[in-house]
Amino acid sequence: MISVKKAIHIMAKNVEILGKEEIPLENSNMRVLAKDIEVLIDVPPFDRAAMDGYAIKAEDTSKSSPQNPIYFEVIAEIGAGEVSKVNLNHYKSVKIATGAPMPQGSDAVVMEENVPKINSQIKLTQPVDFNQDVALQGEDLKKGEIILKKGHILSPNQLALVASSGHSKTKAIKKPKVGVIITGNELVDPTTHLEPGMIINSNKYALKGLIEDCMAVPYLSLGEDNLKTIISQLENNINKFDAVITTGGTAISRGDVVVEAVQELGEVLVHGVSVKPGKPFGFGLIEDKPVFMLSGYPVAAAVQFDILVREQILKMQGINLDIKLLECAAGSNVRSTQGKYNVIRGHLEDGTVYPIKTKAGINKSIIQSNCYILTDENTGKVRKGEKCQVLKYKELKIC
Amino acid sequence: MISVKKAIHIMAKNVEILGKEEIPLENSNMRVLAKDIEVLIDVPPFDRAAMDGYAIKAEDTSKSSPQNPIYFEVIAEIGAGEVSKVNLNHYKSVKIATGAPMPQGSDAVVMEENVPKINSQIKLTQPVDFNQDVALQGEDLKKGEIILKKGHILSPNQLALVASSGHSKTKAIKKPKVGVIITGNELVDPTTHLEPGMIINSNKYALKGLIEDCMAVPYLSLGEDNLKTIISQLENNINKFDAVITTGGTAISRGDVVVEAVQELGEVLVHGVSVKPGKPFGFGLIEDKPVFMLSGYPVAAAVQFDILVREQILKMQGINLDIKLLECAAGSNVRSTQGKYNVIRGHLEDGTVYPIKTKAGINKSIIQSNCYILTDENTGKVRKGEKCQVLKYKELKIC
Repeated sequence: MISVKKAIHIMAKNVEILGKEEIPLENSNMRVLAKDIEVLIDVPPFDRAAMDGYAIKAEDTSKSSPQNPIYFEVIAEIGAGEVSKVNLNHYKSVKIATGAPMPQGSDAVVMEENVPKINSQIKLTQPVDFNQDVALQGEDLKKGEIILKKGHILSPNQLALVASSGHSKTKAIKKPKVGVIITGNELVDPTTHLEPGMIINSNKYALKGLIEDCMAVPYLSLGEDNLKTIISQLENNINKFDAVITTGGTAISRGDVVVEAVQELGEVLVHGVSVKPGKPFGFGLIEDKPVFMLSGYPVAAAVQFDILVREQILKMQGINLDIKLLECAAGSNVRSTQGKYNVIRGHLEDGTVYPIKTKAGINKSIIQSNCYILTDENTGKVRKGEKCQVLKYKELKIC
Repeated sequence: MISVKKAIHIMAKNVEILGKEEIPLENSNMRVLAKDIEVLIDVPPFDRAAMDGYAIKAEDTSKSSPQNPIYFEVIAEIGAGEVSKVNLNHYKSVKIATGAPMPQGSDAVVMEENVPKINSQIKLTQPVDFNQDVALQGEDLKKGEIILKKGHILSPNQLALVASSGHSKTKAIKKPKVGVIITGNELVDPTTHLEPGMIINSNKYALKGLIEDCMAVPYLSLGEDNLKTIISQLENNINKFDAVITTGGTAISRGDVVVEAVQELGEVLVHGVSVKPGKPFGFGLIEDKPVFMLSGYPVAAAVQFDILVREQILKMQGINLDIKLLECAAGSNVRSTQGKYNVIRGHLEDGTVYPIKTKAGINKSIIQSNCYILTDENTGKVRKGEKCQVLKYKELKIC
């Protein structure tokens, strides 16, 4: 049996980031960039009006004042999306819509509402700055500039920025396809007529959702508790997917059928971790692809996923799960075991964390809790009022 | 022009929650319950062993001590998933695996590692409690109990609990199908060869992602800037989807083609809101379905979505967006306009928020910011060091 830290270290050394793929930009929300985004075109692509108004030469206004108004003849009009061939001379103006290209010879815009129009002339009573209300070519995004770095997870508004910089596709890191093999001859689908000895297969639902929450793609299958079948299922999953998660068949005291199968096909690098619950966790490689072996016991499998697996699945797609632990006072005694890395469901409220008191095997604590209390191998019991490390479930979500 | 508060009030009164649908439990991650989850079967369904050990009658151990060991004959063995017909008599025991049903007549389990086995007998040297290491029928989940309430968003571990309580399906609120009509004859797909007057259609990408982030389903189409086409596109979208979002064609000073089309087919309830940027926002109903009319201008459309639309899309699926605003000191002067509800991109760091200084129309602020600074119609300018309301982008995510 090894420590949680050691197990994570072994997995981190052996789990590789996946390759890249080119995908349409519109399907890139929440995807991880495999390459920096470089701006391909200046934005705006030309000097353009930043307001509805009149394009003029700014220098013509330098001496204008209420006492000395200066008049400009309006010689043309440019709508949004239009291009004008006008070449503007002194004391001429062009009516221009926001976003339209500035006509040749012009260098400022006066806002429509600030200048009275008299017949075909506008009247200016104060000086206008050079480039006033002009959006200059490249002032938003400059060709060649890097706006988002490799490893970044794209958000909707960033997609818009990537589009504006000229890209209709992105290079993203592949989403991990994760095969899930649920073993246990006693497992049945949810039913209200449970035969004696049968247990409802709840791991299936939890694992599908947990993998989805990691932005990976789950592929579920049921396994049988015998070596030959498990071996062939593992081979099949390893051929098709990037990683495999199994549940059941790992208990150190029992048949260990899954561990044996992984040993047969590849290499078992971890079997038995000092995590409580979840001791019989296993990790191996088959054809360099990771196999995570979880307990059949749902309470243990959920903890093993959160503490040991989640980080690796995210890492495969280039995401670093940066968990912030809180230090909180315990609202009652925490019964954690020295020598174990204890993962105890808790309820955090107003900075105080209350361990959920249940017997082993009670699943209802899932809905009564909003965090884990974590105590490492050296901590032992935490008394009421003492500080302990808290991991809010919310911290586990990357999306 | 009405206030943001008034606009939200009008929309809230007119946007309805969608109906329910039955879906397989395995597709229910992140779905909103349309009905309470009632437990259909006791969990455990029978009294079962909570440890690997020996099932006995607890009363037989009452006088045991190291000086006075009591011996139990092991008469049978029950594995996980097995059922035994044994009826246990005094001073007899059955070897039992964790999870196996307790045999008739037994009422406690002694852990395997705590009792030496001598030939076919186990030796007890201390009393055992009634029901020790027995998981009692219904102690985890009791038939008839409500474990999750209508309106709750299901998480992976909760799916497992729902499965255990006997459900293979859930009643969930439908996901909104949202038609998106992007208008603007000047819009083109991302390209590095932008014709003069053309603008890259970036709203398409932002809106697809924003709708996905609301757990709704986007359906994109391009519109043309003419009344007849827009009317027929709106009709088509209203027939197929639960809500429609348009961009462009709402500017109060221009053609208002989209607003006119909605007025033609239904009713415009909001047109012009004191939000900055985003004033030309519109809201209407066609056949009781909401139509949200956003600006074509990407910076404005993004703000209109976040401040005015997001909440309504979530509400359609029964989700209450409970945004927590922070009160933070401004790191520099915030140029907000009195009489407007100002939405200013900012960067929050160590409790101080810095407004991003950009000209209107600069999109790059999207990647430089991590929050909005919000100042309502009565606030006006906020000086460096003064407090202001901050909305972290992270708060807008429900998943």
